[in-house]
Formats: sequence, C-alpha cells, structure tokens
Amino acid sequence: MSFIQFSTVIDGPTITSLGPDAISLHPRQLICIDHQGYISRLLDEDDPDFLSVKEQAAQQDRLVTLQDNNYLLPGFIDLHVHAPQWPNAGLALDQPLNEWLNTYTFPLEAKYQDVAFAKTVYNNLVQELIANGTTSALYFGTIHNQANLELAKACIHHQQRGFIGQVAMDNPQQTPTYYRDASATQAVNNTEKFIHQLTDLNQTAALPQTPVITPRFVPSCTPASLSGLGDLAKKYDLPIQSHCSESDWEDGYALSHYHMRDAAVLDHFGLLTDKAVMAHGTLLNQTDLNLFKQRGVAIAHCPISNAYFGNAILPVSQLLAQENKVGLGTDISGGYSPSLYRNMNQAIISSRLLHDGVDRQLPPEKRGTSTAPITAKNAFYLATVGGATSLHLKAGQIKVGYLADFQVVKAPFPVFYPQTPDQIFEKLIYHTTKATINQVFVQGKLVKEGQHETQR
Amino acid sequence: MSFIQFSTVIDGPTITSLGPDAISLHPRQLICIDHQGYISRLLDEDDPDFLSVKEQAAQQDRLVTLQDNNYLLPGFIDLHVHAPQWPNAGLALDQPLNEWLNTYTFPLEAKYQDVAFAKTVYNNLVQELIANGTTSALYFGTIHNQANLELAKACIHHQQRGFIGQVAMDNPQQTPTYYRDASATQAVNNTEKFIHQLTDLNQTAALPQTPVITPRFVPSCTPASLSGLGDLAKKYDLPIQSHCSESDWEDGYALSHYHMRDAAVLDHFGLLTDKAVMAHGTLLNQTDLNLFKQRGVAIAHCPISNAYFGNAILPVSQLLAQENKVGLGTDISGGYSPSLYRNMNQAIISSRLLHDGVDRQLPPEKRGTSTAPITAKNAFYLATVGGATSLHLKAGQIKVGYLADFQVVKAPFPVFYPQTPDQIFEKLIYHTTKATINQVFVQGKLVKEGQHETQR
Ligand SMILES: [Zn+2]
Ligand SMILES: [Zn+2]
Repeated sequence: MSFIQFSTVIDGPTITSLGPDAISLHPRQLICIDHQGYISRLLDEDDPDFLSVKEQAAQQDRLVTLQDNNYLLPGFIDLHVHAPQWPNAGLALDQPLNEWLNTYTFPLEAKYQDVAFAKTVYNNLVQELIANGTTSALYFGTIHNQANLELAKACIHHQQRGFIGQVAMDNPQQTPTYYRDASATQAVNNTEKFIHQLTDLNQTAALPQTPVITPRFVPSCTPASLSGLGDLAKKYDLPIQSHCSESDWEDGYALSHYHMRDAAVLDHFGLLTDKAVMAHGTLLNQTDLNLFKQRGVAIAHCPISNAYFGNAILPVSQLLAQENKVGLGTDISGGYSPSLYRNMNQAIISSRLLHDGVDRQLPPEKRGTSTAPITAKNAFYLATVGGATSLHLKAGQIKVGYLADFQVVKAPFPVFYPQTPDQIFEKLIYHTTKATINQVFVQGKLVKEGQHETQR
Repeated sequence: MSFIQFSTVIDGPTITSLGPDAISLHPRQLICIDHQGYISRLLDEDDPDFLSVKEQAAQQDRLVTLQDNNYLLPGFIDLHVHAPQWPNAGLALDQPLNEWLNTYTFPLEAKYQDVAFAKTVYNNLVQELIANGTTSALYFGTIHNQANLELAKACIHHQQRGFIGQVAMDNPQQTPTYYRDASATQAVNNTEKFIHQLTDLNQTAALPQTPVITPRFVPSCTPASLSGLGDLAKKYDLPIQSHCSESDWEDGYALSHYHMRDAAVLDHFGLLTDKAVMAHGTLLNQTDLNLFKQRGVAIAHCPISNAYFGNAILPVSQLLAQENKVGLGTDISGGYSPSLYRNMNQAIISSRLLHDGVDRQLPPEKRGTSTAPITAKNAFYLATVGGATSLHLKAGQIKVGYLADFQVVKAPFPVFYPQTPDQIFEKLIYHTTKATINQVFVQGKLVKEGQHETQR
C-alpha cells in the first residue's frame, strides 16, 4: 500500500457533530488529508491499517500528532460578520440603534474608501477570526470595491474561506449622504464589477473567495437596486446575504413602505434563494419561516447582537424541529465578540431565557414560552453543520469527502475526575478561548499555530 | 522628602469606578502603596512631585512600570462561588435543576471529605480566579471542616482575599443521606468549630481569611440550624451568605413550609444583617427588596447562572436606583465561567432582554418591561464597588486609603483610530480574558505575572 496520496495525516482525538442532537468523540483517529485538502480516509485505532498508515506518514514527514488533552474539531463557520465594523467591536452598545448606526457605524464604514485603512483592519480581523477557530466567514464589506478586494486578499493571505459582499445601499432616505451608492444603477454595477474583480483575483489565489450579492437590508435599498441585485444573483448563480426582520423597526419598515412582510419583499425581488443567508430574523413569523423553508433560505442566528438590537429571541429549537436552515454569526460589531464559542454560549443562554421568561412580576405560567431551550450539542451543530449547509460547503464535519477545515483545541482546565465524552465536549464548548485554540487548518493547511498565525 | 514609606510605586494608566454611572481614566498616575498594602498616595503626571517620587522609587527598585497599552484596574470581587463545584463548571447545564443537583452537584460536593482532593481542586480554582482578575471572593465550601481549611490555605498560599463558608445543610427532606449534617447541633457546632479553626490558621497567615456563616438555603436547613446560625453570626459578628428567592421552586418552598416569603424566613432567624450577602434574588419582590435595604443586605447578582436556574432576570437598574446593595458573582458551577468579565457582559445582555422582552409573538408594548438596561459602567461598578461595599472592604477603587488590590489588563486589540476614555474602557470590559490580564496585585503584592502565577 502506498500513502503518498495523503498530504497530511493527523493523529489525535476528534469531536464532530452528527446532527442537531448528537456528537461523536473518537478517542483517537488518523485523519488522512489528500492533496486537494479534503479528508480522504479516517482510521480508528482498531483499524488494521492504523499503524502502517501512521508509520508511513511519519517516515514521509507528513504526520501531525496532537498534544495531550488536545482535540480536533471542525473549524467554525461564521455566517454574519460586518468586516468594516471590527474597530468598533464592543463600542457604543449602550446607545440606541439610531445613535449606534449614525454616530458610530456609518462614519466608520465610510472610512474604507481609504484602501490602506481597509488593508490594516481586514488583515487584523481575518487573523483574529482564524485565531478564534473560524475557518469560513460570510462577510459584509462596504460599498467600496477596492476595500472589499482588500478583504478578499486578507482572506487569501491568511487562508480563510471568505464569502465577501459588496454592500449595496442606495436609498437616500435611509442612508447618509457621505456613505451611499449614488444610484441604483451604480449599486448594481459596482456589485457586478466586484464579481468580475474577485473572479480575476481568484485566478492566482491559493484559496478562492466567493462574491456574495449583498443588499444591506430592505430599508437602505430602493426597489430598483433590490430588483437589479436579484437579477445578478440569478445571472451568476451566487450566494445572497442581507438582514431580515431583525427588529421591530425593520419589520415595520417593510409593512409601511411595501405593505408586505420584510421576507415577502426580499422574495418579490428574487432575493430568497437556497443560496441566501438572512441575518437575525428575530421577528420572522411562521409564514415567513415557511417561506424560508420552501426557498431553502438560511438564517444567521447572532445571539449576542440580538440582545442589543433584535428586540426578541429567535426560537432556535423550533427552527431546528421544523428544519429551517440555521447557523451562527458573530454580527461584528452589533455583536462584540469575534468568537463563535461566545455566541454558542449566548445562544444557549438566550434560549433558556426565551423558555423561562424574564419578568419576575409575572407568574411562571405566564412568564415564559413553550419554546424549548437549546443544548450545547444544538449550538455546536449550528456553528459547524448549520453554517456549512447554509453555504453549501462540504465542511463542518469530520467525515470522508469533507474539507479538512479544523481547529485543534486544548482542554481548558485540569480534569479532576474521569470525564465522559459529553463532559469533555461541554467543557470545550463553554470554556474554549482564542488562547486555548492551538492550531487551525484550512483545506488541509496549517494557518494558525499556538498564539501566533504562521508566517507565510 | 523621603519615600521609604512606599513598598511599591506603580506607574501607568488607571481606570476606576466613581459610582454606578461614572468611571475615570487617568492616562498616567503613580500609585504609591504603603507597607501595609494600602494606596497611600496618587500622583497625576502634572503633580510637582511626580518625577521625584518616580525617581526615588526607581532608585530603591520599588518602581513597577506598566507596559504600553496596559491599564491598572481594581481587582474584582466575586460575591458567590461554590468552590467545590469547580470541577463541574460547564457540565450538565442542559439538565433540569433536580438532575443537576442530585446527579452532579451533591455527589461532587460529597467528595470533599477527601482532603487531598480538596487541596488539588482548591489550589487550581484559587489560581484560576486570580488569573481572571478576582482578588477577593466569597466562597461556599462544603460541610467538611478540613476541606474548607484547605480552601483557606489555598487562598493564603496564592494570596487571595477569601471569605469562606462552612456550609450548613441538615434538613433530611431536602439533602441526600450521603451529604448532610447529621443534625442541627452538628451543623451549628461544625460552623463554630470552623470559625475557631480559621482564626487559628490566620495567626500565621500572610493574608487573613474570613469565616462566613453559610446556611446553604432555607430548604436545606431546619429551623433549628437556621436559628443557631443566626445566633453564631451575632455572637461573632460575622458575614453571612445564603441563597434567597433564586427560583420559583425556592420561593415556593418558604411559602408552603413557613407561610412566609423566603426573605422573611431568613430575617426571622437573624440572617439578614448588613453583613449578609444573598445570592441571586431573581424573584425577590418589592417588599423583600425594601427589607434588604432596611437591613443592609447585599445581593450577589449571578447573571450567567440565573439564565440556567433563576427563572427570571434580576432588575439591576432598579436595585441601583433604589440603593439596594448589589455586586456580581460567578456562581460556579451554576454559572460556568470563572470570569467576572463574562458575567459583566451577561449582566448587560440580560438587562437588555429584560427591557426588550424575548417573545416575538407579543407586540413590542407587551413584550418587554420598563426596567432600564444597565451599562458597561454599571456592570463595572457591580464587580468592584458593589462587591467591596457588600463585604465592607476598603477596596474596589483606586483611591487613597484603599487596598492595593489590582489587575493590570492589556488592550485586547490594536487601535485603528484614536479612542476616547469611554472607548478604551468599553473594549476592556467586553474583551478582557485571562490571557490579557498581565498582572494581579493583592494588598500590594504581585500574585500573578503573565500567564503564570508567581512562584512563592
Ligand atoms: Zn448585520
Ligand atoms: Zn449558589
């Protein structure tokens, strides 16, 4: 037998999601990665080939052995990041939405006409997300083509699987004069131009990036731009991202301006496809959710951000039960944390508060809702399989034929008594931080080692 | 002028709370610490003595200069930690309370009759809390005197200001046979014995520890033990800790067994004093809160834990407005995180959910409550001044005459544009982790350096 077909073989314990309610922990596996960066073989310790594969890999200097108390997990998929807002992560969250948007967010986003500024911020952000275990990210950029290309270059340079949106926002009534597409035509043309620019950039890229059709949200676009963007999505068969029913205000905007639900407006313009990812959706009703399911639209659940701007809690357990597509997003900087671990934790906590209710002045039977809390396994599913499904990626699981996008995490604390697989898993979900993520692999390549990103 | 009266002089930027709604950031101060470990002088850069004090301290090798982008903050005060539950932090939180308590928590607590086990766990926990910036902690131990003394020794060894409770739980109907005080007399006697044991230990301790009267909560105690513990608190003038109105179940227990509110039961037995700290209180009503205020009782707000077991959200802004004493607790392991930073973040988030409400099926005007969200400044106040006030400590602020209990934290990310003091502060509150806490001082002594606790 020859094993030259493997570029890397990793030896260590693995944890992967098997579905919304199940994980598996293998105490020791060989993960054999082919030259295209896919998992081509998985061998448990009792496999008759285990030793020979391991030895050959070692002889060929292709063996990576995990340190004690380290575990290999799928890399996370962040379904909603506003890349330009990274400098403001954690700032002004005490402010009301309007203040936050007009005093902090729009002025910052406008700065990205400065390409050097964009390059500095985006290189830092991409490294930060990788360091937190995020191997794929769906990004909102700004209205600036050159800055968005810098984001793509940063993803290529640091080797993150980026999905990158040229933001369209041309409605003069809902966008500031200093930060707006001059017209619907310009919004649509710049988007099409960005698609071509990114396609060109990909010719020489080690890790191709994906352009994403990105109307900011219904209020900030005109019907003409929404319509043009829907056409582009169809013409190029591209992913789409936007926000939908994030807040009472947004929900109300569609109703008063279109006399339709926010989701129905997006659908009307061809923006609800099975490649669409809509952020938040905290106020989607069952009709909207049925439409999402019918169209194959995914929801990016951003639990930290939603506490600040969502006006309600997304009923995640209900979405999972009715098979709506749903994954997790940080929503930097509506959400302060670049970590999907912190968002998994908050998703669980928020779901418990949705179930139990919050107002002590109500009797228990009137305080909560019948929506079940989610579990740590549910949350892990969202951050891995949920995200991968939403982006049509063969990733998010440790499985033959899937992308070798991994994070290697260290048990955060000493173990004081023997732990079950579920206990090992729960400790990692609740306690992993950037400091305990020792290695990150994207498509089989090591992109983070220790606390430092590898030099390339 | 001679400055030999200072044991240490620290040179760097400082941030301190000035009250619930205000902080101050001094871009550069000399913090002069006397030989008893108190702040004896503070000099801003424009003080005429600044240079001479700094130079003399340098000559005497007593000057500590903060690295760039590091800030000196007061150490945090954790008002509620179950030390024995540390091995389970993050485990079984998907379980209902009964399962969590009977399958996970009580069996673990029972293990602390093994003194060696206690020593291992407690040394790890105390170091972990210090590493997270917690310089004072109010601990529940177990019913085991020797194990509780190990906790005190760990605090002395690693130099944390510990308040340590010998837990009393003697009600056979609400405690398991394998983990219970054999009688009310034994519960009370063991508590009194622990007071003497700790007083003896303190004779030779570099940092004295404080014994705390600790009825687990009303349901797990008999009237006789509650009464005896109230007498002990009075006899020795000691702090008291327990849980009060944590959940619908606990609230209901007092009503059905005593025909009184939970708070009134504690008060009846002399357990509500101005040295009492009651955990959670999510279901306290206004009458209870008035009683707390009248008695000077503090509430340990544990927002992460409350999401799992509290059944409602504590209205913190209301407590601050009506001047109830309130501080922050991790409630390990009802709360999974040893970090008060993560609890500050959750306190803010929970307060927003209490304000906005959670159930999207209700119209906005019926969804939320009139309780205002809290700010980052409010949360910082709780973790510092609120905790210090609750424990009658001259700590929690950078102020002449106060204890030199500090944490030195590094700005978590590069700064991409000039930041205001409020922005610097917010970034630290939202993003500080163990990995970015570079130094911790307790009573003027360095107890953590870098990622490693100092050897002693
Ligand atoms: Zn967004
Ligand atoms: Zn407790």
